[in-house]
Amino acid sequence: MATLYGLGVGPGDPDLITLKALKILQTAPVIAYPATMSGDSMARAIAAPHIPAGRTELPFAIDIRTVHDANEERYDTAAAGIAAHLQAGRDVAVLCEGDPFLYGSFMYLFARLAEDWPVVVVPGISSLNAAAAALARPLVAGNETLTLIPATLPEEQLAARLKACEAAAVLKVGRHLPKLKRALAAAGLLERADYIERIGFAEQRQLKLRDLGDDAAPYFSIVLVRRAAESIR
Amino acid sequence: MATLYGLGVGPGDPDLITLKALKILQTAPVIAYPATMSGDSMARAIAAPHIPAGRTELPFAIDIRTVHDANEERYDTAAAGIAAHLQAGRDVAVLCEGDPFLYGSFMYLFARLAEDWPVVVVPGISSLNAAAAALARPLVAGNETLTLIPATLPEEQLAARLKACEAAAVLKVGRHLPKLKRALAAAGLLERADYIERIGFAEQRQLKLRDLGDDAAPYFSIVLVRRAAESIR
Repeated sequence: MATLYGLGVGPGDPDLITLKALKILQTAPVIAYPATMSGDSMARAIAAPHIPAGRTELPFAIDIRTVHDANEERYDTAAAGIAAHLQAGRDVAVLCEGDPFLYGSFMYLFARLAEDWPVVVVPGISSLNAAAAALARPLVAGNETLTLIPATLPEEQLAARLKACEAAAVLKVGRHLPKLKRALAAAGLLERADYIERIGFAEQRQLKLRDLGDDAAPYFSIVLVRRAAESIR
Repeated sequence: MATLYGLGVGPGDPDLITLKALKILQTAPVIAYPATMSGDSMARAIAAPHIPAGRTELPFAIDIRTVHDANEERYDTAAAGIAAHLQAGRDVAVLCEGDPFLYGSFMYLFARLAEDWPVVVVPGISSLNAAAAALARPLVAGNETLTLIPATLPEEQLAARLKACEAAAVLKVGRHLPKLKRALAAAGLLERADYIERIGFAEQRQLKLRDLGDDAAPYFSIVLVRRAAESIR
């Protein structure tokens, strides 16, 4: 019986793929990946140096900027396309930016296919771990909690979550940047926030969030913040 | 000038190291790693298949079961040992279980050495990402928040954090298991909790938390929980 693989390819640098994901990527006959509505695929771009020539490729278009409901049909279609290959006995490796099970589109395919097919998930480096490394900034230590917060939340909820956190990684910043800055200010955390975008790509850029204008940030940008005044030592 | 590397080696499976960490590991002349007071090193055990013969090894003993203060002097000693190699022009790679900046002991060496030496941190697969993959259980989706909570917190704080979370990964379970079960029950989450220990090792074991006895769990065990009744789809 053919196997469906969910392969975390990490946040950007092709060398941040794991050996385990690499081995599967080099042998799977079919390689699927999410793409934007205009056909760009960040997951494929990250894995590109590792994809052998001559593989069957199966991109599926997802609109990451819209609510999930609008993508339901697209995931149905993608799952059907993958299932057809599995049915024909061909393993399918789905490339996933970052980690497949942390806000990844793979989980929507998993929900559609895991009952009928064997699934192996290979974890990937999450963007927050790569952000901490690139910013030379520990995420969390000792008895502290760390909250992962999507910037897509309504402003009040965003501010409430930030007020309650000890340390936070705010993901999916993108066009939510002005709202996020207001919420961080309301939570008394704006001065402590670091910003990074396009981690691991040539265009990587990082600065103190307070020094960043209110123009829209790329979707794959992250803000790290920690409440404690003293540094981790 | 010699460089200090903090290398995430992942949570257990040697194949969950990244290509980037592997390349550095294969060339660094000095390899340092935390060990228990009895001399065992989980980080070294994970990386063992990748360590070339003839490297200088520099284990440093840390008591992970005690409060951080008691380890201050041990970190001072470890940092001095590492600095001596850097001073002599030799790069030092510190092996870190999971990710160096997510509750990792590396951050305490970083705090002591980063002002004087160039430091490169290579992120690693965190145990929570590996736990989600092994349990075939998505961590968090859409607009949900995910809170990382150390089980070492006092019971009241643990219960309060769990009550306020949408999804949580509880780390460092170990001897805090009975307390954690009470806190999860108080937060109405015990029935939804999955438990996994020794992820990626031959002794990996996973079960519903409610089916686990109150005996102490290994330190490196994790509980995943999500409040929403509906599955991610």
